[in-house]
Amino acid sequence: MAAITEETLKVSYEQLGDLEKEFEENEVEIIRHQVALNKPLYEKRAKILDDLPGFWPLVLEQAPPDVDQYIQPSDSAVLLSSLRNLTVSHFEIENGGQGDPRSIAIRVEFNENDYFEDSVLEKKFWHRRAKSGWTGLVSEPVPIKWKKPGKDLTQGLLDLVVKVWEEDQKRGAGKVPITKAKDYTPAQKELKKKIELVGMGGVSFFGWFGFRGFPISEEESRAATEKDKENRRLRAEGKPVPDEDDDEDEDEDDEDDDPYGLEIFPDGDELAIAISEDLWPSAIKYFTSAQETGDMSDIDFEDGMDEDDEDEDEEEEEAPTGKEPPAKKRKA
Amino acid sequence: MAAITEETLKVSYEQLGDLEKEFEENEVEIIRHQVALNKPLYEKRAKILDDLPGFWPLVLEQAPPDVDQYIQPSDSAVLLSSLRNLTVSHFEIENGGQGDPRSIAIRVEFNENDYFEDSVLEKKFWHRRAKSGWTGLVSEPVPIKWKKPGKDLTQGLLDLVVKVWEEDQKRGAGKVPITKAKDYTPAQKELKKKIELVGMGGVSFFGWFGFRGFPISEEESRAATEKDKENRRLRAEGKPVPDEDDDEDEDEDDEDDDPYGLEIFPDGDELAIAISEDLWPSAIKYFTSAQETGDMSDIDFEDGMDEDDEDEDEEEEEAPTGKEPPAKKRKA
Repeated sequence: MAAITEETLKVSYEQLGDLEKEFEENEVEIIRHQVALNKPLYEKRAKILDDLPGFWPLVLEQAPPDVDQYIQPSDSAVLLSSLRNLTVSHFEIENGGQGDPRSIAIRVEFNENDYFEDSVLEKKFWHRRAKSGWTGLVSEPVPIKWKKPGKDLTQGLLDLVVKVWEEDQKRGAGKVPITKAKDYTPAQKELKKKIELVGMGGVSFFGWFGFRGFPISEEESRAATEKDKENRRLRAEGKPVPDEDDDEDEDEDDEDDDPYGLEIFPDGDELAIAISEDLWPSAIKYFTSAQETGDMSDIDFEDGMDEDDEDEDEEEEEAPTGKEPPAKKRKA
Repeated sequence: MAAITEETLKVSYEQLGDLEKEFEENEVEIIRHQVALNKPLYEKRAKILDDLPGFWPLVLEQAPPDVDQYIQPSDSAVLLSSLRNLTVSHFEIENGGQGDPRSIAIRVEFNENDYFEDSVLEKKFWHRRAKSGWTGLVSEPVPIKWKKPGKDLTQGLLDLVVKVWEEDQKRGAGKVPITKAKDYTPAQKELKKKIELVGMGGVSFFGWFGFRGFPISEEESRAATEKDKENRRLRAEGKPVPDEDDDEDEDEDDEDDDPYGLEIFPDGDELAIAISEDLWPSAIKYFTSAQETGDMSDIDFEDGMDEDDEDEDEEEEEAPTGKEPPAKKRKA
């Protein structure tokens, strides 16, 4: 093996970084392929679920910790009794679209309930790249029409986020939102105060509809992606890569600046990913495991059925055929 | 919505079960596509890593809990000092093979060390389906040539597993291994005793090379897969599915039978999956995070370099360009 110099190491690190981007590009292609391949199966599933109205509440009861941790006891009541349907779509690649397959829309449908008027809440997440190199999901607040202030599960947080969002929109699409506490508008100050009051620990699942994430516009994302590709190309050809420092207003390192300062649901992107990459594709698995545990106490799953048919749950399972390996080891 | 009858429910459950299998078939196609697409990138990575001999030990230091939990302190010593390379391959689809892309081979290369003679240990896992419906990975023990009995990190467990395996092979390929304690051979009894003695909690990582999993032959797997497909086809056409019970010797429910009774590393399949689906694809991420934490205490990573170059670690990282979102939120 040749002796390793500092220069070799530096080049190797850069190469590894660039290789990661190539893996990421492949991953995007794979998701694109996967979405297209599974589309007819998800449609088939939706059709079957028309006959199983208690499906999604049961799935939610068995939800993995990365979803379950965000559901407060007060949320459970409304979700278990009125969640009717849940759908994940990759809206940027639907109908022949050539966008990013990592952008997702999560549509939640509800039965009539005591808490809000909406029968559908849909939240969109766009996959973006920032100038800094950060990549991930950003979103826009989705308002909820609470029936009474006392029924607002977010205790006013969501309404305030929507108000601040509308102010930002009025200031103009090109404008960066105010992210320094000293420049806050009255609505922003009120929101900040309320966030501290309600406490980050106990925010309702419905606060998720208020998640915004980093303020990265489509334009910034496109420019950052192109620049990144160009820099990789230059490095691959052994050419010098232009220094970032000539970007205007880019190199001021401002301590006051906190783009997440007014976020009522800071893990909103994580929850979206947990829903789209786990709850959604593995819903049948969670449903089956809910039935196996037989823990149907909280849900009237057989709603609409003859109440006498209580002993059929066990029958549904494929009878294990003899002495072979236990189900314990089955993979999803 | 139509009223839901017991019959509707039963049909819906069966349909969901069959749909899961269709999703699984798609997943297999996606893995096949992914392996082909990423192959040149993994080759590129291997080439870059030739210049970074400390790469894999560093990755292992930052390994996620689903790998790390299996590495005992005594294993760390030899792994950190002599792990040279790690490669995951999907051997059933290499060179145009049309096998199962979920079957994997994990090849571990070592530098000269005090513990064993082998410079390469390769463990293969075959993806199989049992008659019972169970699907997952099965394997064969891989012997290790310990330099002295005192250097055997598995305290004799692996040697015994290999001995029992060889007995099973001599009894004939078609024969099912002995899985009832009352029928054990002397070697099996000795193994059972040693498993109890060494304790399941503290088995060395190297015990993983002894993992066998459920005794499912290629023939059983192929037959089960075909039968399963046929049954799904019949159900989709609304035709009756033949009862499983006419299978010979299949319906005796034997309490004594314990196919995992002599397993020295019962989570062997889980560890294989954690390596192939997490450690292997995310290795660059773990390597980078190892460098960021700067926790290089245990490893002489710059082995072979001028010892004076201590301050370059920070330089390697791409300088963050200004006030944009923190790296905290970056996705893998």
